Amino acid sequence: MNYYSEKIDRLIEQLGGLPGIGNKSAQRLAFHILNMPKERVRALTDTITDARENVRYCKECFTLTDKEICPICSNPGRDKTTIMVVETTRDLAAYEKTGKYNGVYHVLQGAISPMLGIGPADIRLKELMTRLQGDVKEVIIATNSSLEGEATAMYISKLIKPAGIKVTRIASGIPVGGDLEYIDEVTLLRALEGRKAL
Amino acid sequence: MNYYSEKIDRLIEQLGGLPGIGNKSAQRLAFHILNMPKERVRALTDTITDARENVRYCKECFTLTDKEICPICSNPGRDKTTIMVVETTRDLAAYEKTGKYNGVYHVLQGAISPMLGIGPADIRLKELMTRLQGDVKEVIIATNSSLEGEATAMYISKLIKPAGIKVTRIASGIPVGGDLEYIDEVTLLRALEGRKAL
Repeated sequence: MNYYSEKIDRLIEQLGGLPGIGNKSAQRLAFHILNMPKERVRALTDTITDARENVRYCKECFTLTDKEICPICSNPGRDKTTIMVVETTRDLAAYEKTGKYNGVYHVLQGAISPMLGIGPADIRLKELMTRLQGDVKEVIIATNSSLEGEATAMYISKLIKPAGIKVTRIASGIPVGGDLEYIDEVTLLRALEGRKAL
Repeated sequence: MNYYSEKIDRLIEQLGGLPGIGNKSAQRLAFHILNMPKERVRALTDTITDARENVRYCKECFTLTDKEICPICSNPGRDKTTIMVVETTRDLAAYEKTGKYNGVYHVLQGAISPMLGIGPADIRLKELMTRLQGDVKEVIIATNSSLEGEATAMYISKLIKPAGIKVTRIASGIPVGGDLEYIDEVTLLRALEGRKAL
């Protein structure tokens, strides 16, 4: 890529380093930015800097937030005796969108993955155990339904059960509106295993 | 979107305002940025700012460049008597990638579009006419094969022809490797009209 001048090439390269942005998209973005009003570009870079400098982990649940304690943990209306364990802040947001969950969360900021060399000490497990010393009635494990998510769920459940706290796992099965024909075999078997009496 | 804190929401909003980045991609990008090392984030924002502040139009051909005169115009090995007229710097780069064109360019920075209210005065046409007062033998019009590109090509050719300079248009037809079955009718007719004796 020597068809543009150095500063443009560097911009394309930096943008192309972001996830999901290939070379073509990076070029499109770069020229869009070069044609944006300077004050809009400044707003963009300021927002990026501000977020990166000031967003940290909530001291209670370890979600990403710009407060010491996130809005959910500091909300007195939330039920602190129920903790839903998720892998990331985006997973937390997915459940918040349902508007039906009134407990609090614990964000692991990852999942156990021997393949990637991520062990129990690399995610926020110790912090979860500390929280369980308070008044907690149920831990709902809502890690992903991937190999890593399942392994993490198993590990956590084994760790917590001896403490006498109720541990549950969100259900696996056919997504609502899903067409059996297009669902993979593992999910079909999970749905069968998890069948309920009508 | 009140599932994240304010600074994260603002970051997602800013990123989502870029072309080709939907809400889901913006969220993915935002959390990627929040997890990037601070110095990498600084490199990203510095590169954006540096490019936007220092990239300007080449004084000869009006491509985007960080020099007064772009590397192509300032290259004594390029044939200045042949000017290829393109709409954007990205179109210029597309022809540069072929490595076979040794003339120079003129970047209109747009195309005539009555629909978008872009007239001949809104693109770099006057600047092209000024360049033609020098020693120019051929103007190759390589605007896009879209409605706007074709209209711009027609307009320019009418403007230049009286000056006695050779004006050509890049060929329209079946792309190399293209399967007739999947080519639109207009292209098929263009290819027929442009047929050559074997």
